[in-house]
Amino acid sequence: MRNQPIGVMDSGVGGLTVVSEIWRQLPREEVLFYGDSARCPYGDRPAAEIAEFTFRALDFLVEQGVKMLVIACNTATAVCLEWARERYDIPVLGVIAPGARAAIAATTNQRVGIIGTRATISSNSYPRALHLTHRGIATFPVACPQFVSLVERGITATAELLPVVADSLREFSGMNIDTLILGCTHYPLLENVIQQALGADVTLINSAEETARDISFVLTDKQLTRTHPAKPNHVFFTSGDVDTFADIGKRWLGEPISVAYYDLWEGEERSDAAEV
Amino acid sequence: MRNQPIGVMDSGVGGLTVVSEIWRQLPREEVLFYGDSARCPYGDRPAAEIAEFTFRALDFLVEQGVKMLVIACNTATAVCLEWARERYDIPVLGVIAPGARAAIAATTNQRVGIIGTRATISSNSYPRALHLTHRGIATFPVACPQFVSLVERGITATAELLPVVADSLREFSGMNIDTLILGCTHYPLLENVIQQALGADVTLINSAEETARDISFVLTDKQLTRTHPAKPNHVFFTSGDVDTFADIGKRWLGEPISVAYYDLWEGEERSDAAEV
Repeated sequence: MRNQPIGVMDSGVGGLTVVSEIWRQLPREEVLFYGDSARCPYGDRPAAEIAEFTFRALDFLVEQGVKMLVIACNTATAVCLEWARERYDIPVLGVIAPGARAAIAATTNQRVGIIGTRATISSNSYPRALHLTHRGIATFPVACPQFVSLVERGITATAELLPVVADSLREFSGMNIDTLILGCTHYPLLENVIQQALGADVTLINSAEETARDISFVLTDKQLTRTHPAKPNHVFFTSGDVDTFADIGKRWLGEPISVAYYDLWEGEERSDAAEV
Repeated sequence: MRNQPIGVMDSGVGGLTVVSEIWRQLPREEVLFYGDSARCPYGDRPAAEIAEFTFRALDFLVEQGVKMLVIACNTATAVCLEWARERYDIPVLGVIAPGARAAIAATTNQRVGIIGTRATISSNSYPRALHLTHRGIATFPVACPQFVSLVERGITATAELLPVVADSLREFSGMNIDTLILGCTHYPLLENVIQQALGADVTLINSAEETARDISFVLTDKQLTRTHPAKPNHVFFTSGDVDTFADIGKRWLGEPISVAYYDLWEGEERSDAAEV
């Protein structure tokens, strides 16, 4: 069991930010990744549909024999984490609790902004997670529904992004936040632009780093660390465009990855591209 | 259950560095602390004796109705963590895995020094924990048996400490470490002096911060976060000198604490002060 891969799912390429941290913090571990770019973004869809997509991806990873599941998508975590923990008998981790925890450790004025998709923001998951641990945190949630499509389309040039990003983040002016949770795993790919828009005084919280710590804790705690002597063989599936995924993967992970096309909804009505 | 305190034990005052991080990262939680200063340091004692002392302290905390146990002492963690997990049906956390994890995240040249008591160093716990996650880490362990007594005696003035500390750390010269694990919860109280002796280029890893993250993860994961509306009422017991404990506590925690004397070995032969 301990030599099986870690299963990571995302609505698209955003979960690669979590993979990057797994590689850095847990270099012996092997990753099996499913990115559902064909149906991305999840963030504007109804909860029932998000759950339908998420569980098909998670079921697929479990069938491949993963030792744990990571829902590397804030929207899917907000909607599905609790159900997923009941459904599977392997550990299931999400990205919301880790981000909340890192924000509490980082803030000094107890004023924390949160950006995410509409579904994540309206789920109220971050304020709930923050207040569970620290009731004194003032939270400022703002939905930024355009950001995910920009990343999925591979647009990361500052000149093109800054006006859009600055406009979305204008809501934070005067709120005096000292910490901002990047409440979507796609957002770290826009980190430089977001930092530029908000100024250097705001600490950006990338859940990926903290999520990898949680994965590390669970693997050690449950004696699930990989001990196989062979180099890990990471496998990436996308239901979207293979070249775009491979490009973003290479840039984000720092080395070429082999990506295969696989759509779990192939031939079914659900496999239509997102309309939103 | 979720409103019970977190039980924290240490061989003396060192565990207060963990309490400080619990207060910062988990301000709603309540702490019940037992510091066994009468038998401190544990680090030069045989394993059987360390286990005897540690389990009497942990049993006491469990009898008081704590919801989880934190062994905030590296020596006791090295010797007792696995047994403690079998013995109790509440979560038990130690300080070694968190420190190892933080070091892996911090190092860039994969050369990590470790300082600790003789028992911790000879247990080989840190190299084992590091290599479980990352086989490429070169480890440089050095026992610093004098440091704990300095802290327990309340000696923290740089002028007095620097010669002793610099002498103990001389072994690291030429080893090119970029990260040093403070493998004893007493050592963060000497952090400034250690940093001065090693130079600013070496990152010091204080397990306390990372241990509090692990506590936070477990509380959230097991739905054990405290929800009681009242301010937490922290309770500190020491088997040593109450005034010294209260002084160090006030300095380290930033506010006065109420400390009570309680020796679990009172009247027994074991309650003699340490001979080592």
